[in-house]
Amino acid sequence: MPDPDAFADGPRARVRVHLDAELMLGPGKAELLEGIAATGSIAEAGRRMGMSYQRAWSLVQTLNAGFAEPLVERQRGGSGGGGARLTATGEQVLSIYRAIERECQRAVDKRAEALAALRRL
Amino acid sequence: MPDPDAFADGPRARVRVHLDAELMLGPGKAELLEGIAATGSIAEAGRRMGMSYQRAWSLVQTLNAGFAEPLVERQRGGSGGGGARLTATGEQVLSIYRAIERECQRAVDKRAEALAALRRL
Repeated sequence: MPDPDAFADGPRARVRVHLDAELMLGPGKAELLEGIAATGSIAEAGRRMGMSYQRAWSLVQTLNAGFAEPLVERQRGGSGGGGARLTATGEQVLSIYRAIERECQRAVDKRAEALAALRRL
Repeated sequence: MPDPDAFADGPRARVRVHLDAELMLGPGKAELLEGIAATGSIAEAGRRMGMSYQRAWSLVQTLNAGFAEPLVERQRGGSGGGGARLTATGEQVLSIYRAIERECQRAVDKRAEALAALRRL
């Protein structure tokens, strides 16, 4: 459930893109990919979303298996034990999803006044 | 999870419109409203979706409480014990949601080729 403060600008769209019967791209996977890009770590990206490492890693595996190239690449070695980053495919998928999301939000924004008029004042 | 046959035309968008922190319009509520319009019965509309009468009626109550006018009106009396129908507000809300849904689907359709190119062939 979104934060009540999120509604200062009116109704919010949340979109799930079902690529086929098995693979879905939605706000959670997009946020996870973004978190990995920002933190360089699957664990840390998951933690920010209140998600266990296992859950985050399982989502990454689902995404990786659904495309010709992996979306997230783990980097081994180094004193920190390696991190993770988005591949070019990962960046493209994330950017396509965010573009779809923006257009859906615009479709909602266009009708926000009509919806508000039908609601309690 | 959508029917696999639903993907003959490519990826499908499913959109939830969060009107505020408490009220959400999504594919389920839209289908229920449409079913009520088609069947004249909350019970029958719910049954078609594999939903108990209690669940269907609770969704109707949530929708009714969220707008200035009810979206669904029960008609009493008659030998059949009365039915239900969409009010003008109900028809408007449904039609606004369907318009948003169509625009989201177009946003997905525009990017279906780019997504397919990134997936396994």
